[in-house]
Amino acid sequence: MKAEIDSLQTTYESHTVSDLTSQSTLLEQYRSVRTYTEALCKPLRVEDYIPQPVEFISPPKWHLAHTTWFFEEFLLCKYQPGYQRFHPDFSYLFNSYYNHVGTRVLRTDRGNITRPGVEEVYEYRRYVDSAMQELLQPDKITDELQEVILLGLNHEQQHQELLITDLKYILGHNPIFPVYSEGYTLTERANLETGILSIEEGLYGIGYNDQGFCYDNELGRHKVYLEAFEISKALVTNGEYLEFMKDGAYERFDLWLDEGWSWVKQNNAKAPLYWHNIEGEWYYYTLSGLRKVEPDNILCHINFYEAMAFAEWKGMRLPTEFEWEVAASQFQWGTRWEWTHSAYLPYPRFSKAPGAIGEYNGKFMINQMVLRGASTATSPHHSRATYRNFFHPHLQWQCTGIRLVR
Amino acid sequence: MKAEIDSLQTTYESHTVSDLTSQSTLLEQYRSVRTYTEALCKPLRVEDYIPQPVEFISPPKWHLAHTTWFFEEFLLCKYQPGYQRFHPDFSYLFNSYYNHVGTRVLRTDRGNITRPGVEEVYEYRRYVDSAMQELLQPDKITDELQEVILLGLNHEQQHQELLITDLKYILGHNPIFPVYSEGYTLTERANLETGILSIEEGLYGIGYNDQGFCYDNELGRHKVYLEAFEISKALVTNGEYLEFMKDGAYERFDLWLDEGWSWVKQNNAKAPLYWHNIEGEWYYYTLSGLRKVEPDNILCHINFYEAMAFAEWKGMRLPTEFEWEVAASQFQWGTRWEWTHSAYLPYPRFSKAPGAIGEYNGKFMINQMVLRGASTATSPHHSRATYRNFFHPHLQWQCTGIRLVR
Amino acid sequence: MKAEIDSLQTTYESHTVSDLTSQSTLLEQYRSVRTYTEALCKPLRVEDYIPQPVEFISPPKWHLAHTTWFFEEFLLCKYQPGYQRFHPDFSYLFNSYYNHVGTRVLRTDRGNITRPGVEEVYEYRRYVDSAMQELLQPDKITDELQEVILLGLNHEQQHQELLITDLKYILGHNPIFPVYSEGYTLTERANLETGILSIEEGLYGIGYNDQGFCYDNELGRHKVYLEAFEISKALVTNGEYLEFMKDGAYERFDLWLDEGWSWVKQNNAKAPLYWHNIEGEWYYYTLSGLRKVEPDNILCHINFYEAMAFAEWKGMRLPTEFEWEVAASQFQWGTRWEWTHSAYLPYPRFSKAPGAIGEYNGKFMINQMVLRGASTATSPHHSRATYRNFFHPHLQWQCTGIRLVR
Amino acid sequence: MKAEIDSLQTTYESHTVSDLTSQSTLLEQYRSVRTYTEALCKPLRVEDYIPQPVEFISPPKWHLAHTTWFFEEFLLCKYQPGYQRFHPDFSYLFNSYYNHVGTRVLRTDRGNITRPGVEEVYEYRRYVDSAMQELLQPDKITDELQEVILLGLNHEQQHQELLITDLKYILGHNPIFPVYSEGYTLTERANLETGILSIEEGLYGIGYNDQGFCYDNELGRHKVYLEAFEISKALVTNGEYLEFMKDGAYERFDLWLDEGWSWVKQNNAKAPLYWHNIEGEWYYYTLSGLRKVEPDNILCHINFYEAMAFAEWKGMRLPTEFEWEVAASQFQWGTRWEWTHSAYLPYPRFSKAPGAIGEYNGKFMINQMVLRGASTATSPHHSRATYRNFFHPHLQWQCTGIRLVR
Repeated sequence: MKAEIDSLQTTYESHTVSDLTSQSTLLEQYRSVRTYTEALCKPLRVEDYIPQPVEFISPPKWHLAHTTWFFEEFLLCKYQPGYQRFHPDFSYLFNSYYNHVGTRVLRTDRGNITRPGVEEVYEYRRYVDSAMQELLQPDKITDELQEVILLGLNHEQQHQELLITDLKYILGHNPIFPVYSEGYTLTERANLETGILSIEEGLYGIGYNDQGFCYDNELGRHKVYLEAFEISKALVTNGEYLEFMKDGAYERFDLWLDEGWSWVKQNNAKAPLYWHNIEGEWYYYTLSGLRKVEPDNILCHINFYEAMAFAEWKGMRLPTEFEWEVAASQFQWGTRWEWTHSAYLPYPRFSKAPGAIGEYNGKFMINQMVLRGASTATSPHHSRATYRNFFHPHLQWQCTGIRLVR
Repeated sequence: MKAEIDSLQTTYESHTVSDLTSQSTLLEQYRSVRTYTEALCKPLRVEDYIPQPVEFISPPKWHLAHTTWFFEEFLLCKYQPGYQRFHPDFSYLFNSYYNHVGTRVLRTDRGNITRPGVEEVYEYRRYVDSAMQELLQPDKITDELQEVILLGLNHEQQHQELLITDLKYILGHNPIFPVYSEGYTLTERANLETGILSIEEGLYGIGYNDQGFCYDNELGRHKVYLEAFEISKALVTNGEYLEFMKDGAYERFDLWLDEGWSWVKQNNAKAPLYWHNIEGEWYYYTLSGLRKVEPDNILCHINFYEAMAFAEWKGMRLPTEFEWEVAASQFQWGTRWEWTHSAYLPYPRFSKAPGAIGEYNGKFMINQMVLRGASTATSPHHSRATYRNFFHPHLQWQCTGIRLVR
Repeated sequence: MKAEIDSLQTTYESHTVSDLTSQSTLLEQYRSVRTYTEALCKPLRVEDYIPQPVEFISPPKWHLAHTTWFFEEFLLCKYQPGYQRFHPDFSYLFNSYYNHVGTRVLRTDRGNITRPGVEEVYEYRRYVDSAMQELLQPDKITDELQEVILLGLNHEQQHQELLITDLKYILGHNPIFPVYSEGYTLTERANLETGILSIEEGLYGIGYNDQGFCYDNELGRHKVYLEAFEISKALVTNGEYLEFMKDGAYERFDLWLDEGWSWVKQNNAKAPLYWHNIEGEWYYYTLSGLRKVEPDNILCHINFYEAMAFAEWKGMRLPTEFEWEVAASQFQWGTRWEWTHSAYLPYPRFSKAPGAIGEYNGKFMINQMVLRGASTATSPHHSRATYRNFFHPHLQWQCTGIRLVR
Repeated sequence: MKAEIDSLQTTYESHTVSDLTSQSTLLEQYRSVRTYTEALCKPLRVEDYIPQPVEFISPPKWHLAHTTWFFEEFLLCKYQPGYQRFHPDFSYLFNSYYNHVGTRVLRTDRGNITRPGVEEVYEYRRYVDSAMQELLQPDKITDELQEVILLGLNHEQQHQELLITDLKYILGHNPIFPVYSEGYTLTERANLETGILSIEEGLYGIGYNDQGFCYDNELGRHKVYLEAFEISKALVTNGEYLEFMKDGAYERFDLWLDEGWSWVKQNNAKAPLYWHNIEGEWYYYTLSGLRKVEPDNILCHINFYEAMAFAEWKGMRLPTEFEWEVAASQFQWGTRWEWTHSAYLPYPRFSKAPGAIGEYNGKFMINQMVLRGASTATSPHHSRATYRNFFHPHLQWQCTGIRLVR
């Protein structure tokens, strides 16, 4: 068992193949990404693939099928002459939110679809992989094709992160706290750096400015004027958050946004997600089981409201996404998705692609806050300083953290 | 495949071992009931055991475990010296509604418990079965013990019916309409009798009056005065219900109870559960797939509101449970649970047992209507003329039907 | 002020004119009922006529208009040649639940209709009263007409009771506990009788059996067989209920119906409606303000769940509506509507009238429990031993009470 | 009647006294603002003061009392020695959202408080006005005092706008469409300008930069870099929006934000708020009754989702709040609050005041979008180019409009 885990961990750490800007061929990259998704599912039992405990969580089986459907729908059906769909109903079952592609299973009903079964979904993956192998012959790949393939691979990497965080949510809401894999945890990391970084006022360039792949929401390189600020090189730790809790965090309305305070009261919130107070001691659920909260490790699984209240308590604030992007070259990041104080809105000159691909990002630009960086759940190399992640302010289940500014 | 199905069907039809009043030993009866539960699950895939699409449906895995927990909790822990529970958490996970036995998983969260897995639940069954084998040595069985065992077996039979109807709900809400088992259907039955039966006015005895097992809600044998009535020997068919639908059933408020009409509008109801109109033709989902509605077969899957509206349209009415019980010896029944126009309330002298067993029936005696008879989903021999089933008036997923009176 | 109150009280007590079976003319009866409705509203300010705090409460203004609309719609428009409606929109605004009469304001929106104003509604009353005066000339009154008029008068009396209990709900949910009228209270009454009454087993006649007015739900005089029982002549007092509360009433799941226990938990119920614990003492809101709970007075404002739990705790039970009707001639009643253990269902041979009038009772015969007797809020002479009132089991705002049986 | 209306209109148009930076004394300004609130209520009947049809609407009576409570709580109780509160319960009843000041009536229950009545609330106003007159003696007014008084006056002006828009919501949801005042309408205004304005790229100063009163959310004057843009001098008209509707606006998912599309489907949205299609023609409710939609008038009562979908359809976009502020000196504004494409977030160096006053703005800075300008419902002189209004993106009941940019 331990050997298998180590191997998974190694795969995880040394997983360079999805470096999509490297010299590896598209086919090699395709295989690498697709293999990694399945590696993440190795420790699962069939039962674990099925449930959808709340609307924003998708069943692992659905992630496996939906990422495959993306290649079938946007590549094989369009660019591979004579391609036969694996199953006529799969487009209906595994479309996520692309209205252009037709009707789909309601988002809340993903957990009820027991058939096709897990094995059939793996067959679907093999079937599509085999067809993709043909399509990905170097001589056939046009620029247009390459763009969609890279989008498909990045899409699958995003789902890898969701798959592992959704899975944690499923297992973490089982009262017997099952072990996904001994020794595997997303959250036990200490800060590598300390100290404060000073950034001068000035006009800075923001947005993607390189040759490789990026999402449309990073484009529109533009100038932003920033006032001088100081930013912490370290992220907030569990120990610091415990201080905040001891000081009455969840009972002090004056520290919270109005909607944050409503969230606290409606959910009777008392601690970050997955934390449990057992006879006076704080524990949290990790993918290797229930553990005592380690004060030196970096705080995880807090929502934007909690991040804001903590900053208020500390007399500091969260960085804007622009401040973060400008400073990011001078500190280590990648352990937590970091909440910024910026709403998710388009950059200047943003325009969405025509058709279904245009539904990828633009239509979600409302009522969400930007997160910057990457997390221990992010697929290796699937981030960059200009990457913009985004979630609704009440959600806690991603590997989120806090970096402070003053 | 066909052979396996036939065998299941045969088991089903000739399944006499659970005739709990017969001369077979308690151990034989125990084995028979327990085996039948697992036989019903034979066609399932692991995935099918997991989902809980709505609160009133339980996952098949939960039924398997909960019926086992009943024997562990109420028999082995109490009467088998030195018995060790299979797993300390199972009582928490698989208790249903017995508050006396402590906290339990919320009813709405049964579909999220992926672990223990299906295999582990079968191990749990084997472990308990093995301990029960010891307990069920004829010389050890006291009257008190026998009473609880018979309750446990009848309890498991009730769950067999729920298991198959819950499963139909799960598969029937999958847009690809999976086949549980070719040739296996609960609903394709025609009436065996026709004509009208006349019952004279008079004082009649109501309630269980025999030596065998019955539920506490059947006790309190008492006299009821009935006026003369005429009752149909046949149940309402699909064809008759189609007439009703053609005559505007779901658009005519004057036919419905006020809450029934609200139900129609809120759910945009247009037909019985599982019925689908495909290009002008009516189909329904059966456990062997989607089928065209057969007019001569007996109507199934209607709720109390629909039954009442149909009776109103027909200028007739539903029988009371007392009328039904008095007439039942003179017609064939057992194909559908038949809605009566009686609320589920206690008989005279009803008293609930002390402790958890007392929670079995009494506390549900509010806002439910009585159904009489049995259905094609009922375990063989698990009914009698005095049996009182009960459901909330809006529920359709049991194999319910309509018998009319005037 | 005090004089006015006394006069209102006197009117209330000596209010015999609505004795609809007496020799007074229909016109006299009409005037008496209509006057009494307005007398109840005397202490109101314009503001009090408007709100609808929850769906089951109607604004006083709505009661005034709706009872008037009944006469306009079912009498004047039908039987008075050349009658002109007061306003074309009023039928839409003040129809309650008669689907036959067309669309209507949603039940939840009654509190938003500020116009027509209170004064305009009183004008509407005068306009209709004046037209009714013409219609009610003795020589014009046919049997058919008389039947609808009597229904209209009884209908208005029912709304008088709802008006005063709805008003109590509105004022009782104002944190400053306004006084409706000094000295006016519905709940301060002690038992006039004590002791137990024994009723022998036997066949009894149930249902209305006289010459005067009754509702259709009382008809279908029929025989019911009752076993012998003993019934208390006194109703349960506040003092007895306080004992129950001290013994853990609202914390003991074993005393409650399952849905009752859910109600307790969802509402965090701790006492009857309008009771407030202020620094360790129990007070309740009355129409003359906040008062200390008087132990000797009869308990009021409990729902069916509370009544059942109390009976369970006492080791007794509630009477069926048949037991109550049989015994009622031998004890005093009329102080509280008394919860029975009977569901609201039709008597044998029940048939509803054609058209809108047929919607009066029949369509509500589901998920409600029968109450028998009358209460201090009931209009004088508006009850009889066969009268069947009915409410959903969770509702507390009527003047309900408990009589026990064993 | 007409004379009274004209006078109200005149008051409205020439209402300069609340120019809080002018030379009029604070007392004069106080009187002017207070008088104007009551002038707005002149056409009301008592009944109109009471209802709260949905959570985000407050009853007119509540506005009258709450704005008064502000002066009592933050000025008289603090700065006027020996001041006696008008009524001990009013702080509880009429506090809005200031947690620092203690418990308060739930926001959803404001419509149930019939007492204190309207007359009593006017007495409350007179009582406080009289005490304020003493406090506002020129020699007593410190800088600290002046700051709170100006906040109180601006606060009341904000509530004047809410009062009239809330009132429109109340009357506009009455199926008989009552007239507030003949000839009085908020929405019948045509554009005064046409054409496009070009703004060059560059660094611009944003935020309040003057001597008079402003809110804390306008402070933190800072530089923002803007790319060149072109902005329309005219606002979108009803006629243009009708074109959009004819082109399938509410049926085309591709034009909408994802949450906007959900809003459309859940609410079955088909047109702006208050629009009704009567036999094929579009009408809307105005404060002088139901009117035919006038194509040349400026569009009103659309939410952010509708504004975004319209811009998408037009191939243009909404301005950011910075673009708007920079361009505003070169076009006429003040007819509609204009939706911008900026989330409501703090400016650099934003800090909230200590105590209750600090709850005024900061805690609402989440999930809302900024509106700029002012509307026909805004009190005269109660706006400026740096003013930031904000609402949730689904709300339509303010006098909102669309200005486009490319």
